[in-house]
Amino acid sequence: MAELDKHILLMDGPDAKGLIHHVTGVLFRHGLNVIHNDEYVSPTGRFFMRTEFEGAFDSKALLQDLNETLSTQTDAQGITFRLNPKRRKNIVVMVTKEHHCLAELLIRYAFDELDADILAVVSNYNSLQGLVSKFGIPFHYVSHEGKSREEHEEAILRTLAIYEPEYLVLAKYMRVLTPEFVRHYPNRIINIHHSFLPAFVGANPYRQAYERGVKIIGATAHFVNNDLDEGPIIAQDVKEVNHRQLAGDMAMEGRDVEKIVLSQALKLVFNDRVFIAGNRAIVL
Amino acid sequence: MAELDKHILLMDGPDAKGLIHHVTGVLFRHGLNVIHNDEYVSPTGRFFMRTEFEGAFDSKALLQDLNETLSTQTDAQGITFRLNPKRRKNIVVMVTKEHHCLAELLIRYAFDELDADILAVVSNYNSLQGLVSKFGIPFHYVSHEGKSREEHEEAILRTLAIYEPEYLVLAKYMRVLTPEFVRHYPNRIINIHHSFLPAFVGANPYRQAYERGVKIIGATAHFVNNDLDEGPIIAQDVKEVNHRQLAGDMAMEGRDVEKIVLSQALKLVFNDRVFIAGNRAIVL
Amino acid sequence: MAELDKHILLMDGPDAKGLIHHVTGVLFRHGLNVIHNDEYVSPTGRFFMRTEFEGAFDSKALLQDLNETLSTQTDAQGITFRLNPKRRKNIVVMVTKEHHCLAELLIRYAFDELDADILAVVSNYNSLQGLVSKFGIPFHYVSHEGKSREEHEEAILRTLAIYEPEYLVLAKYMRVLTPEFVRHYPNRIINIHHSFLPAFVGANPYRQAYERGVKIIGATAHFVNNDLDEGPIIAQDVKEVNHRQLAGDMAMEGRDVEKIVLSQALKLVFNDRVFIAGNRAIVL
Amino acid sequence: MAELDKHILLMDGPDAKGLIHHVTGVLFRHGLNVIHNDEYVSPTGRFFMRTEFEGAFDSKALLQDLNETLSTQTDAQGITFRLNPKRRKNIVVMVTKEHHCLAELLIRYAFDELDADILAVVSNYNSLQGLVSKFGIPFHYVSHEGKSREEHEEAILRTLAIYEPEYLVLAKYMRVLTPEFVRHYPNRIINIHHSFLPAFVGANPYRQAYERGVKIIGATAHFVNNDLDEGPIIAQDVKEVNHRQLAGDMAMEGRDVEKIVLSQALKLVFNDRVFIAGNRAIVL
Repeated sequence: MAELDKHILLMDGPDAKGLIHHVTGVLFRHGLNVIHNDEYVSPTGRFFMRTEFEGAFDSKALLQDLNETLSTQTDAQGITFRLNPKRRKNIVVMVTKEHHCLAELLIRYAFDELDADILAVVSNYNSLQGLVSKFGIPFHYVSHEGKSREEHEEAILRTLAIYEPEYLVLAKYMRVLTPEFVRHYPNRIINIHHSFLPAFVGANPYRQAYERGVKIIGATAHFVNNDLDEGPIIAQDVKEVNHRQLAGDMAMEGRDVEKIVLSQALKLVFNDRVFIAGNRAIVL
Repeated sequence: MAELDKHILLMDGPDAKGLIHHVTGVLFRHGLNVIHNDEYVSPTGRFFMRTEFEGAFDSKALLQDLNETLSTQTDAQGITFRLNPKRRKNIVVMVTKEHHCLAELLIRYAFDELDADILAVVSNYNSLQGLVSKFGIPFHYVSHEGKSREEHEEAILRTLAIYEPEYLVLAKYMRVLTPEFVRHYPNRIINIHHSFLPAFVGANPYRQAYERGVKIIGATAHFVNNDLDEGPIIAQDVKEVNHRQLAGDMAMEGRDVEKIVLSQALKLVFNDRVFIAGNRAIVL
Repeated sequence: MAELDKHILLMDGPDAKGLIHHVTGVLFRHGLNVIHNDEYVSPTGRFFMRTEFEGAFDSKALLQDLNETLSTQTDAQGITFRLNPKRRKNIVVMVTKEHHCLAELLIRYAFDELDADILAVVSNYNSLQGLVSKFGIPFHYVSHEGKSREEHEEAILRTLAIYEPEYLVLAKYMRVLTPEFVRHYPNRIINIHHSFLPAFVGANPYRQAYERGVKIIGATAHFVNNDLDEGPIIAQDVKEVNHRQLAGDMAMEGRDVEKIVLSQALKLVFNDRVFIAGNRAIVL
Repeated sequence: MAELDKHILLMDGPDAKGLIHHVTGVLFRHGLNVIHNDEYVSPTGRFFMRTEFEGAFDSKALLQDLNETLSTQTDAQGITFRLNPKRRKNIVVMVTKEHHCLAELLIRYAFDELDADILAVVSNYNSLQGLVSKFGIPFHYVSHEGKSREEHEEAILRTLAIYEPEYLVLAKYMRVLTPEFVRHYPNRIINIHHSFLPAFVGANPYRQAYERGVKIIGATAHFVNNDLDEGPIIAQDVKEVNHRQLAGDMAMEGRDVEKIVLSQALKLVFNDRVFIAGNRAIVL
């Protein structure tokens, strides 16, 4: 009951004077109680706010009041509101051969800790089909063999079209996606990269880490945009290594970091805590 | 100039509906622009808020408006405001024999990174006098030899009376303070404890850590209240250790953690980011 | 092939002069090549050594030579050798209601990353039966309802007798074990405790952590001996928390730490890297 | 006394069978007791060993015995031994304008925790002269103004020639050194780089980190070789940041990491724990 009664308002747009005051004022007039409010103004003057509040209300009337109040009482322009974004997101997970990130998501999903529904798993190999089938989730094997990159991506897009997922989660999907593909899911593809970006972009980061002799390895969860390994970073974590660990050992150790970082990033995104400001992820 | 133009409003009291709205409304009416606002409502219903804003204003009028608005427009009772608390705090540092935390504070002070003025250093030994004198700060050697605990504390209090510090910083002061002493500085004494509290309260925590065979050691900066090692925790950090490290090795390694944790805690306190809710420190 | 050719020699006993020299000498005479050697002498004079070497040899002749050499060439007494301890250990996992540690072990086992065979899972509830059955592992529901502690433990021991596991892994088994039970598996029971021991021994550590207002939480994997939460610590890790997180939030966050720490500790134990010296775990 | 009686033997060269056995055998015959032995064989077949032992001995005889034994009893070739390398190293510290790393070293030196003697401080600015003079250490202001890079480096080399330091410590020396300069101190220049290398090589790493929107910053202590920011990494550490922190805030926070990482790296180097294998630092 209390949980059903907790609401979220997201706000994003150019900064203006009095935004917090007027928005909280509208909530106040509607008899709603702010539990937590977090806002951020970027150095370039963009305003982001995430408000948790409780109470009963009429969504349409509230949004109308918010927009009217801003337009009549402030200089604000181009502000967008999102009221109570859908709690559970629909996602499709894409993988290649490694199981650890996928398994982590499947277990969380099975025990209702993912804040999302995994509609399907898509892979360019069929080796993880057995794992996925344990959890009763559709598995689509879309091989890249004998296909051009474009043909392969079109085959994947046809599969995704069945599910219309809100987010694509690349849980160690090891092929580069073309800008054309990415354009179908703007800021809706989340990737786990097996290095502490921007160190070791590209292939074989643990090999690179070994060669460079680093003392710490890491993993990065980020949105995918047109430039490979260049999208907004949502979460990162690291782990100490030493000279005895070869690239393969680092890769093994790194898996634990990768799967936890990916899960934490997804939790933030699925709980509507992440805004995108240029190439930076704002976590409120 | 920009810096002079940045202001801070702190607010603390029982929660009530509309607090954020009405306070930001008063700021809005005075033509002030909120840069950052952070608030917290404890599970027991206490409201804390820290607001950064910019613009020119009349302090007295602003505070009067804030109090009147809350009393006429809301059910709020017992709210206290602090407007632009003094930027640089006055502190006295108390030490015993170890230099590392004291040296850290002296260096930060010398390079204007402490957000406080060190008025004096008080010690029950004279071994750190040479270090302190390099920085031109009064050093008071108040030996405990031949004195009862009460006599010793009275002697310290007499010395402190010269300086009237806002905060006492116990930078490895290794004697227990009586409740009578602590009562003179309610929530104004900050201690660094050389363990990850509440593990290893009391004396010789590194010896205890070694005996217990822990794999991680730590340090805790906290306010001192009547119960030793029991006050609100401001900051903590840890460091990995292994079986080869004896208690003395851990103590050596631990120093780096202690001095950094203490400095970070002081920065939070001196920047008016720390509120106290019962036995918990709220960091906004 | 190379892997089959890699051997491990473990050595444990009172320190004496020349141990490393004579042991490596025996290996040298048998034409074996030391790849890695790690030894530790405790402050109380106990010697531990773990040697990795490669080459072909006769186990019986090698062990005989080792013992004879030490007894004739050194003053060493009471040294025990273990040569090539069994690679994959047999384990039984005990759980109560929480799934996360168990799921982590099941996934690692399914993908051959556990260095052990999970013979069975025993629980005092039946809620995790569905998860376990996905992986084709026997699940034994041994309820404590209507049984005395002794009766319950006897029922568990009867179940364990079927499997004769080398190790019992308590993957969030939430009942205290009696010394009588523990005596059946000396230094062979590994528990994950959901706090940074020795902070917060006993029940509800996250509740305790919340009440104390700590800024960091943690988890501890340790051997179980007669005293609850007091056995040798194998591995620990921590995670930052803040004042907004209630005990339940900390528990949720803590799960990620718990499962990774448990897995890491098991990897060390199952790879024969952990020696026990009094109440301390030596990790070579 | 015990301390004087503890000795260190370092060994470096191509791997061969029986090295550990024969070396520990020589020590055994000389009546010496190995306290700790750590060795490493790189994937390219290079052998490194660091042995701590105790007892009384004749250095010349011991080294002769070591060399003879290896040449007659093994196939080892090109092994070099270092017996009891000088305990306290002589160093010169080079800085530009930032004080924090320098101050850390000065404090450690003043309290005999540096394992080295700071012979002098050299800077291309004179702003840190006051700090250095507090500690009675010569300060050389060698301005780069009006000089070519070569002229400036020659002026520095002339200053260094007075002191003949074993190591140069670049404690935030912000100018690139030429290969010609570096050649004078092969593997004897240690730099602290204010990023988690190899992320953000070059200038303004915190600016780069801010622009990239990373969630973790770091610092790297490394040997300097011909390629800037490319030498063997000795130690690294990291710290979490968030979207509210501008480049300047990150730089401020990063200082604490930088100075501790540099100190830890120096401790390792000055205690003769660091070997160089190609572009990798082996820490034994």
